[in-house]
Amino acid sequence: MEVSIGGTLHARPDVFTPDCPARMLLDHVTSRWGVLILVALSGGTMRWGELRRWAQGISEKMLAQTLRTLEADGLVLREPRPVIPPHVDYSLTDRGRELSALLLPLTEWVITNAQ
Amino acid sequence: MEVSIGGTLHARPDVFTPDCPARMLLDHVTSRWGVLILVALSGGTMRWGELRRWAQGISEKMLAQTLRTLEADGLVLREPRPVIPPHVDYSLTDRGRELSALLLPLTEWVITNAQ
Repeated sequence: MEVSIGGTLHARPDVFTPDCPARMLLDHVTSRWGVLILVALSGGTMRWGELRRWAQGISEKMLAQTLRTLEADGLVLREPRPVIPPHVDYSLTDRGRELSALLLPLTEWVITNAQ
Repeated sequence: MEVSIGGTLHARPDVFTPDCPARMLLDHVTSRWGVLILVALSGGTMRWGELRRWAQGISEKMLAQTLRTLEADGLVLREPRPVIPPHVDYSLTDRGRELSALLLPLTEWVITNAQ
């Protein structure tokens, strides 16, 4: 199975030419902060401040930019809550959940192998 | 299963603090070129020039740096061949194959969803 998928992809480097949509989306979903935010949200809805604490070391600007990119890719849903005090909820879309299901085994592997 | 893995990771943001080994390894294996090189080598042994053509847009310097990093992480094996003309073979280690088996479904998903 791995070999067959690998063989297919291996024969199709054209799908990752520099300006193709696949390369761009790959950049987004494998960016350091992209991965961490998608993994964080795989546990459920989070607010801005929770995400900021979770992704330790991220700047306000980078968090805003990462969330905007993931929202534009249709992976993250942004929902302002008109309560008092007002806040914004971030969660995964169906597509985002599909992707995070593939990212989680990868991050688990990294944690295990980085010891 | 996904939920349980997600739940676990979600409760452990400490494994991804900025200077921990997991964050560093995650950076390496999810860097744009890191992913592409690992996917390329999942199809079998390749030489420098083949990798350069496969990862379109990569510079000589960035290819050298990416291969060195992946070699240091124990993911890529570098084997100089003392034949005429001499060349160097690059392939995945067992650990690299384990990782690429997780990266392939991710890149397949990206190709499908980037349309």
